[in-house]
Amino acid sequence: MNYYQQHHQEYLEGLKTFLRIPSISTLSEHKPDIQKAAEFVRDELTKAGLNQAQLIEGQGNPLVYAEWLGAPGKPTLLFYGHYDVQPPDPLDEWKTPPFEPAIRNDNIYARGSADDKGQTYILIKAVDGLLKQHGRLPINVKFLVEGEEEVGGEHIESYVASKPARLKADAAVICDTEMFAPELPTICVGLRGIVYGELWVQGADHDLHSGIYGGAAPNPIQAIAEILCALKDAQGHIRIPGFYDRVQAPSEKERAAWARLPLDEKEYTEKEMGAKELVGEPEIPLLERTWARPTLEVHGIRGGFTGEGAKTVIPARAVAKISMRLVADQHPEEATAQLKKAIAAACPKGVTAEYKPIHSARPSLVNPDNKFIQAAAEAMKQVFGKETVYIRSGGSIPIVAAFDEFLGIPSVMMGFGLPDDNLHAPNEKMHLPNFFRGIEAVARYLEILGS
Amino acid sequence: MNYYQQHHQEYLEGLKTFLRIPSISTLSEHKPDIQKAAEFVRDELTKAGLNQAQLIEGQGNPLVYAEWLGAPGKPTLLFYGHYDVQPPDPLDEWKTPPFEPAIRNDNIYARGSADDKGQTYILIKAVDGLLKQHGRLPINVKFLVEGEEEVGGEHIESYVASKPARLKADAAVICDTEMFAPELPTICVGLRGIVYGELWVQGADHDLHSGIYGGAAPNPIQAIAEILCALKDAQGHIRIPGFYDRVQAPSEKERAAWARLPLDEKEYTEKEMGAKELVGEPEIPLLERTWARPTLEVHGIRGGFTGEGAKTVIPARAVAKISMRLVADQHPEEATAQLKKAIAAACPKGVTAEYKPIHSARPSLVNPDNKFIQAAAEAMKQVFGKETVYIRSGGSIPIVAAFDEFLGIPSVMMGFGLPDDNLHAPNEKMHLPNFFRGIEAVARYLEILGS
Repeated sequence: MNYYQQHHQEYLEGLKTFLRIPSISTLSEHKPDIQKAAEFVRDELTKAGLNQAQLIEGQGNPLVYAEWLGAPGKPTLLFYGHYDVQPPDPLDEWKTPPFEPAIRNDNIYARGSADDKGQTYILIKAVDGLLKQHGRLPINVKFLVEGEEEVGGEHIESYVASKPARLKADAAVICDTEMFAPELPTICVGLRGIVYGELWVQGADHDLHSGIYGGAAPNPIQAIAEILCALKDAQGHIRIPGFYDRVQAPSEKERAAWARLPLDEKEYTEKEMGAKELVGEPEIPLLERTWARPTLEVHGIRGGFTGEGAKTVIPARAVAKISMRLVADQHPEEATAQLKKAIAAACPKGVTAEYKPIHSARPSLVNPDNKFIQAAAEAMKQVFGKETVYIRSGGSIPIVAAFDEFLGIPSVMMGFGLPDDNLHAPNEKMHLPNFFRGIEAVARYLEILGS
Repeated sequence: MNYYQQHHQEYLEGLKTFLRIPSISTLSEHKPDIQKAAEFVRDELTKAGLNQAQLIEGQGNPLVYAEWLGAPGKPTLLFYGHYDVQPPDPLDEWKTPPFEPAIRNDNIYARGSADDKGQTYILIKAVDGLLKQHGRLPINVKFLVEGEEEVGGEHIESYVASKPARLKADAAVICDTEMFAPELPTICVGLRGIVYGELWVQGADHDLHSGIYGGAAPNPIQAIAEILCALKDAQGHIRIPGFYDRVQAPSEKERAAWARLPLDEKEYTEKEMGAKELVGEPEIPLLERTWARPTLEVHGIRGGFTGEGAKTVIPARAVAKISMRLVADQHPEEATAQLKKAIAAACPKGVTAEYKPIHSARPSLVNPDNKFIQAAAEAMKQVFGKETVYIRSGGSIPIVAAFDEFLGIPSVMMGFGLPDDNLHAPNEKMHLPNFFRGIEAVARYLEILGS
């Protein structure tokens, strides 16, 4: 039993403490929990033996910074994670409460277990283990942990843009992605970007009785339906003019590698997603649809009477939350402009429609041939005992584009989540063997880079 | 000053007491208020001098019954009203609280002021006035006041079906419609029916992360949008096969009379509705669209994340409340079956869609040539000093069809609301001059019928 294996119970208790803090960044009433989670991360970094552990406050939720720079001449890694989480609703679908971590079948269930407290904690404990064992690290590290990832991460971006000297590093390590399959070491080399906002539609200036005005009154919910159908057809093709113009198709080599990945489409559909069938552009293979194609999704909609029973009202207004996932080389600003134009063109008679942006992030693609990615692949291979595969992720990690743009460094996305971890959904979990082996793999990565 | 004019203050205080009871029938937590409102009506009928005033309890919200049968050989009228009201939301759009009646500019503002407490109270006070003045009525009357009109009125229908002897009358009088314009005496001779229910759409069995699954996962909100657009086109034509087959066009005489009614379409659109333009079948005139054409409207929609900020979730399910207004000779059962079939045909890949009915009512058309309608027109003409006009209403009063079917009697729809009364909407009001003159007109109606 190695050092890390001897400390499983301690790692688990620490993680539980972290998961009990409901640090939901999208809900302003959780500001005190955000503070508490930031302080928890700072204190863990201090206890691990890092220097300068501190909260960077002033703009938005605190950033947590720490460093260990005692290996001159060796490379420097910038470790990134986030301590904020998604809201837990719908609450009644959780088997155990979202902020009371519960262990069932080798998994720990809690909001944030995989996204991203569990994975952030992997980074901290890897460094903690090396420092506790050797009193030093084989390379230099800096930590930058944020609390606004789930709301767009704008403040960390401006911080990164303003502090290139302080954050100077050779590569960033991001522990916020997943393994393609259980036990299959995986590095993610591509992310989709996102444009997220609200579509507000206004009809009359007050709610109207559908008996009296039905047949003549504009209906904002029907209008949203018409706009959504104009933006995307029933086969999943986005009908926004110019939207696909910059989309880069994956290389033939990438397509071939993806086709070799172990994916049971029936199991993916029925067990992992719990759906009866897949949808989306029928001419594009599944992994390419979710990794290399942009999307347009409606995430929520609210309008009119939704209580118990019947109310024959034609509502004055309705709102839908919509996003577009972007792929290289699409630009959020351009896509937003295209969306606004398409909404204006699709807006039916009698209503006004307005798109209000909430946040956006650029897509990113990393070249897997650089030595920091190669070393990470080797470390994971050694710990998990299998060849590491390269995938993309359909999600968005805005900081990757910022590290590229402002620090000029590539991001190594070593992830230890699993596809069925229920991110952003009820019953989010982290597979505990991945959590424990993740700590070992990150420590091994540092050793390989330092040797 | 006649007897009625001397009692305005008393009528107003009584109405205020009635309006202060939040007897919302669609919300089960208001059951005690429903009971209180029913008891208020019973007590008012007793105080007026009617006999047998009582609550009929056991099925649903209480019915209130009372009678005065001291004019043998004279006709009998069955007076109908309802003491239940719509929910007041959105609450923050009320200028004064919905259950604290407030008088501004000759109007009384409160939920239920026009629909239908104010109008029910007109009937009670007309009879009260005649009995107080003369100790007797010129004809026989029965009252049947219900507390479920806003939730479909099924229990009064089964009561009417089961008690034809007790409710035997020559005509029903329904005081739940409006005048076409201020000071313009109006009788309504046609009502639309309704079919109201919920459209439930289910995609995956749990919410999914749009980054990971976007491009492959079915989206129930998008599916509802597609179904809504399949059911009705952008011009307002309902695309349910067979749906228009039984629709009877109004006669040329009716069309010509409607074209003569005082209607400023710009004022109707901008001031009354507060909209920028009218929508609906462009080839059909406005009054025909709202009185003689069926509709399909979505009244509310709920799905996914609708809180503050952003959550990138593809929701597992969504629900929309939808109704169809029906016109003669459409049948609710047939229309429901057509709707279900059309929903099944329009349901996109990857989701299941289910329509759950909540309530329905048949449309009705009354022949204006019968003597009870003629006498009502004469009474209104005498009190208001203008020729009475005949209109239809786009709303649904299910009891009219039940009186026709089970008691074999026509309904006289004398209404004293106004088009801008904000029924079912914030700031519902009743025009007080209409309220006071309505009491006189109903009393005059009884005198004409008794002479």
